[in-house]
Amino acid sequence: MNEQSILSRVLPQLEQGDDIVIPPGDDCAAVDVGGDRLLLIAADQVIANTHYDTADTTPQEAARKLLKRNVSDIAAMGGTPAHGVLTIAAGFKDEQWFIDFFEGVADEARKWDISICGGDLSSTKSCDEVCSLTITGWVDRDKVALRANAKDGDSIFCTGELGNSYSSRHHLTFTPRVEAAQFLCGEFTNTMMDLSDGVGLDLERMCIASEIGARVDVDALPLRNGANIDAGLSDGEDYELLFSVPEAKVDALISSWPFKELKLTKLGVFTNLISGIQYVVHNKEVEVEYKPGFDHFR
Amino acid sequence: MNEQSILSRVLPQLEQGDDIVIPPGDDCAAVDVGGDRLLLIAADQVIANTHYDTADTTPQEAARKLLKRNVSDIAAMGGTPAHGVLTIAAGFKDEQWFIDFFEGVADEARKWDISICGGDLSSTKSCDEVCSLTITGWVDRDKVALRANAKDGDSIFCTGELGNSYSSRHHLTFTPRVEAAQFLCGEFTNTMMDLSDGVGLDLERMCIASEIGARVDVDALPLRNGANIDAGLSDGEDYELLFSVPEAKVDALISSWPFKELKLTKLGVFTNLISGIQYVVHNKEVEVEYKPGFDHFR
Repeated sequence: MNEQSILSRVLPQLEQGDDIVIPPGDDCAAVDVGGDRLLLIAADQVIANTHYDTADTTPQEAARKLLKRNVSDIAAMGGTPAHGVLTIAAGFKDEQWFIDFFEGVADEARKWDISICGGDLSSTKSCDEVCSLTITGWVDRDKVALRANAKDGDSIFCTGELGNSYSSRHHLTFTPRVEAAQFLCGEFTNTMMDLSDGVGLDLERMCIASEIGARVDVDALPLRNGANIDAGLSDGEDYELLFSVPEAKVDALISSWPFKELKLTKLGVFTNLISGIQYVVHNKEVEVEYKPGFDHFR
Repeated sequence: MNEQSILSRVLPQLEQGDDIVIPPGDDCAAVDVGGDRLLLIAADQVIANTHYDTADTTPQEAARKLLKRNVSDIAAMGGTPAHGVLTIAAGFKDEQWFIDFFEGVADEARKWDISICGGDLSSTKSCDEVCSLTITGWVDRDKVALRANAKDGDSIFCTGELGNSYSSRHHLTFTPRVEAAQFLCGEFTNTMMDLSDGVGLDLERMCIASEIGARVDVDALPLRNGANIDAGLSDGEDYELLFSVPEAKVDALISSWPFKELKLTKLGVFTNLISGIQYVVHNKEVEVEYKPGFDHFR
């Protein structure tokens, strides 16, 4: 299945109402429900033995991952999570599996003040359970961040470290960057997304949405222990923030960054001079080879 | 898996925020987002070879069923559908399957003015695709129908016909009762649910929610062609409305019912004199044996 090819054919057929102020294509859609806030909405799945290995992942960990990857989508828009609706298709699970899974759901929901207010449980004939969460959130109309706002000369920043998410178990243990995103939005950026499919592919998406090119300093990539450049660009499941900062605000951002435990890295610049992404070392273009590992529809 | 047993253990752990004015337990949850309208939210799945037989169901039909069973949950609260978020976990499907499935999604969404504004596509190793839809809707605060409002002496009504949904293909071809529900809500009822798991089980749920008993006239059951009493009570997937009407409004309802093609049937009465459901023929109690076929979490 080539997801991008499918979506390019089917998305244009899905008509959007006048209340949809941010249509599919960003980390969340946004709905105008009246008032100063926009209602954000997104959905994501975790599938056994696709998004986690049942051999070394507890049901609680799988549940936490499901919630956190959805929270990360709300964070990417500068929002605050609000409600969740959960469906599970599971085969051959005993009651204890559900008790354990929902323990993870309840704990993680409590952390983010999410009301899990509906859902559905069904049986499948497959061993590999499919768990799907729809999340909503709220964001101030004048603070919402999109992928489409990057401008010529803006710096490209990311939080945290990149690559080797799967074997380091970062994909299970990560913290969605809600607090950092809210610090950034409105004040320092209005162009943001979460890094779920690798910065190589995700930055390309931001460039396409913003109709701009990017130059990335390969030496700057904040690689996680065990990650080489290929892994840093393509492993995916980093769940960090990728965002643009106007040149005039870069120094203020760096000096005021309040999250001592969270790396803040300038990866490069957005530029009108090129199309696509140019990778450089000491300002000299280099070839990087990477194979995008993940390709999801958000 | 015993769904009811699981839910009774896990639901109390899911904390609900102050904005959740109708918590899990009805066909939809309802969220106070300010203003006169409540935001309804619910989710349901269709799973290949559980909810439809891939041998005789087109992808378009499966997609329509997914949307319609969610629309039916919005209808059950007296609401109007608004937004949908769709996730698909599919294995071994070619691109044409997705094109066909989304054709069904887009057509059905257009009928009900639903903006399908987000989602996720992922691969599984299972042959049986799992498709999950979260739906939102709007309902006037003073017109919303719950399961919990039935009163002693209220008549029990349902729309349409019951039983034999699967082999008659009603489960694929049905029309969600949005229009009928909106006619009823506020004016004739504030106690309603959709019949998805068979009137035997669903009426029991309404009785428990309303803390009341019910007497059902077995001869009155509007059986679909090919359905016996057992099937009418237990087959499920009728997607009709079950609702209570105060005695004083029964004649007005019957005389003003504007849907010529849609049966309206009085099944019996709610009563404080008994607990549980009593089935009668000519006012004499009879034993009915039925095995609930469906047991979903909504």
